[in-house]
Amino acid sequence: MLTYNLMHTGSDSLYEYLYKSIKHDIMHGMLKPGDKLPSKRSLAANLGVSVITVENAYAQLMDQGYIYSIPKKGYYVTDFGSMLAEKKQSFAKEMAPLTGGDTSYFADFSSNQTASDLFPFTIWSKVVREILSDSRMQLMTNSPCGGISALRNSIAGYLKAFRGLDVQPEQIIIGAGTEYLYSLLIQLLGSDQTYAVENPGYRRLEQIYRSFHVPCARIPLDAEGICISNLEDAGADIVHVTPSHQYPTGIVMPISRRYELLGWAARGEGRYIIEDDYDSELRLSGQPIPTLQSIDLSERVIYLNTFTKTLCSTVRISYMILPKGLLSRFYEKLSFYSCTVSNFEQYTLARFIEEGKFETHVNRLRSHYRRKQDLLLEALWKSRLGNMVSITGERAGLHFLMRVHTKVPQREVMGRAKSRGIKLVALSDYYHGEQSPENVYVMHYSAVDVTRAREIMERIYKSCI
Amino acid sequence: MLTYNLMHTGSDSLYEYLYKSIKHDIMHGMLKPGDKLPSKRSLAANLGVSVITVENAYAQLMDQGYIYSIPKKGYYVTDFGSMLAEKKQSFAKEMAPLTGGDTSYFADFSSNQTASDLFPFTIWSKVVREILSDSRMQLMTNSPCGGISALRNSIAGYLKAFRGLDVQPEQIIIGAGTEYLYSLLIQLLGSDQTYAVENPGYRRLEQIYRSFHVPCARIPLDAEGICISNLEDAGADIVHVTPSHQYPTGIVMPISRRYELLGWAARGEGRYIIEDDYDSELRLSGQPIPTLQSIDLSERVIYLNTFTKTLCSTVRISYMILPKGLLSRFYEKLSFYSCTVSNFEQYTLARFIEEGKFETHVNRLRSHYRRKQDLLLEALWKSRLGNMVSITGERAGLHFLMRVHTKVPQREVMGRAKSRGIKLVALSDYYHGEQSPENVYVMHYSAVDVTRAREIMERIYKSCI
Repeated sequence: MLTYNLMHTGSDSLYEYLYKSIKHDIMHGMLKPGDKLPSKRSLAANLGVSVITVENAYAQLMDQGYIYSIPKKGYYVTDFGSMLAEKKQSFAKEMAPLTGGDTSYFADFSSNQTASDLFPFTIWSKVVREILSDSRMQLMTNSPCGGISALRNSIAGYLKAFRGLDVQPEQIIIGAGTEYLYSLLIQLLGSDQTYAVENPGYRRLEQIYRSFHVPCARIPLDAEGICISNLEDAGADIVHVTPSHQYPTGIVMPISRRYELLGWAARGEGRYIIEDDYDSELRLSGQPIPTLQSIDLSERVIYLNTFTKTLCSTVRISYMILPKGLLSRFYEKLSFYSCTVSNFEQYTLARFIEEGKFETHVNRLRSHYRRKQDLLLEALWKSRLGNMVSITGERAGLHFLMRVHTKVPQREVMGRAKSRGIKLVALSDYYHGEQSPENVYVMHYSAVDVTRAREIMERIYKSCI
Repeated sequence: MLTYNLMHTGSDSLYEYLYKSIKHDIMHGMLKPGDKLPSKRSLAANLGVSVITVENAYAQLMDQGYIYSIPKKGYYVTDFGSMLAEKKQSFAKEMAPLTGGDTSYFADFSSNQTASDLFPFTIWSKVVREILSDSRMQLMTNSPCGGISALRNSIAGYLKAFRGLDVQPEQIIIGAGTEYLYSLLIQLLGSDQTYAVENPGYRRLEQIYRSFHVPCARIPLDAEGICISNLEDAGADIVHVTPSHQYPTGIVMPISRRYELLGWAARGEGRYIIEDDYDSELRLSGQPIPTLQSIDLSERVIYLNTFTKTLCSTVRISYMILPKGLLSRFYEKLSFYSCTVSNFEQYTLARFIEEGKFETHVNRLRSHYRRKQDLLLEALWKSRLGNMVSITGERAGLHFLMRVHTKVPQREVMGRAKSRGIKLVALSDYYHGEQSPENVYVMHYSAVDVTRAREIMERIYKSCI
């Protein structure tokens, strides 16, 4: 039976101390993968604490993926090693798997995608089969341009329950990927408008605007996100932002800047904010800050999100929420387009969400990545590298920023790391024109094997000294 | 709890009857906006039917917007009053089943879609199930921007065997519908080029060009198709044509005009022909004429085709074949885009084609429509209408042209026909600016019930005298 001394918990509450103690034992091999933990009741009795205390500790361990439960059987220690090994085996060599991640590297920090083995393939397939057998009529009925109502209803319900967004289903427009939705937005808002993008930011977004020959301005960021005064100076009409987790800096835009941005939009006729909430489902810690969409009273926010990231990038479904003021313009100008997502996938996703399967999946994703990030950062802090770096942007998503305090030039750090099998991505790659920071790295960790975390940190350390 | 008598459902299935009963109660105020419906399980128990039955009824009500669901809470009656009026209109219009055809007409000649009941749903579902169980790895592996190679190989094989086209799979670019491919072409060829369209022609195509603010010129047709001299005069760079079955005139472009058109393209730097072969699979009679693509030696033809027409319009898959000279430009400029069609449908279609099921289906479609057209025309020639009309464009596709020789003005003919339950579409609707022909009708016959053919012809006759 586990026994811990709960007399000296420091500033921790009893349950926090217990959680940390068990986690420590898992991390250091005192508790082995597959080990069964004592029942809550018996552990509580053994430690002389209440069952609630044990329950809270177990819940937190489960939430972070250190343990899992089998109904009516009990709690078990997660087998990290075999999970990762299994995942690696499942990829055929010649294919570029979803995890991205060049396997010729010991660790590839350049892939930004969720791992394909986290996609609930069996459950998804089951829903597909159900839809095929019970929805034949609907599958053969043309979708409205904005998407089938079942899916728009499901998304509206999900957004209300889990993101606090209050939107009508008809405000939701479904499309085959975010890139396609941008092309609709250019047509809706006009190709003569000036579109502002974050600098640093998503390179692909600028590629799209340039590909359509749309005027595009790059706006610098400060510590709180996009700079409003530069936005004014650039004469921007439309601005694209990622407030919940700026890409790539990871900045979470504080509420004050959000109001400033809304103020900017309200000051000018025809100004709009495109709020790309791509990483919101993967918030790993901290309090949620309301979306721009939810605090927008002047109908200037177009909210965008995608299932290609949370679900599976080979299922091409994204959506945008138009403010009511733009809806009639949309239907008037663009309703001649057919919806680009097939009915088969629209109905499948609708049911997947409606039955709570999407929520379950997102929770699972979140605890997987939280655990993964924790393990990586823990290894980082324990390593010699820990003394020479600072970490930011780790509250959400599949990447964080690592600033290395070293005299070695970035070019050389990257070259040395590469020769040691570590692919690093420099933040400076995301800057255009501006003076960009030296020796700051965008650490996309989704394709990195955390069982190698210690060795990875050691190799990076050696590249930095 | 809702209670309905399910003993006398007439010809309806249980779920249809239940759906109609609930809809009736909503429409007549017995169920009020915001009312919560019983859970599927409890309603099923109350009515003594299976949960699936209730589920299907609820699904249909949701799809049509009568009710909506909130995950984990339940089903509620929609508040139509608060919904946008325009939305209701556009939904009602768009949610017509694939067969199109407004059933309030005795005969509706305005629907241009293949009937959904011809789609081999069971076979398609079987392939989906197979793919789900044996292609998990591939389904989770990112598609190249142009589409998965299995599908591009299948299409290349099909085109070689049945259309005599000799293309490399890499030349084939898959996209979620033809409309999406046009947006790619605008980006590939440039939005400063002048795009020429046929007049009369597809209205939607011009809508797309205008929506992207791309210069667009309308080129008249003569008896052989698009007029080359007008193309020169308009300063066109790119021309869109439908040579295998011009829409809506039905003109099949003779080989001589095809060579002239290729000559036009070869004379100028940067000139391209977009050959939209949308109706080629439904050639009903006559010898096939080689596609422009197959006789193009100067690499100026972009061939476009779609499965939305031959297969099912709710499966969104189209493709284009780029000439080799444009391939590197495509990959250089546009390969940053993700493919807009999900892997699940790409693999399903690939196998469907590869196993010969697509060919079988197309043959079935062709003989179905040939027979349907034969029956209609037979009834026409036998009727009193037969003496006052001439028919053209009947060699392919789902429509033909009917010229009525009468002194009654077109407006009046159409009005009278409408009052007799016949919806006619005038060819003049497809003309822009030009003087358009009087009393020529585009007869889309796919949604017309041929068992009514005699009566239909009689009613049209009475409208013309």
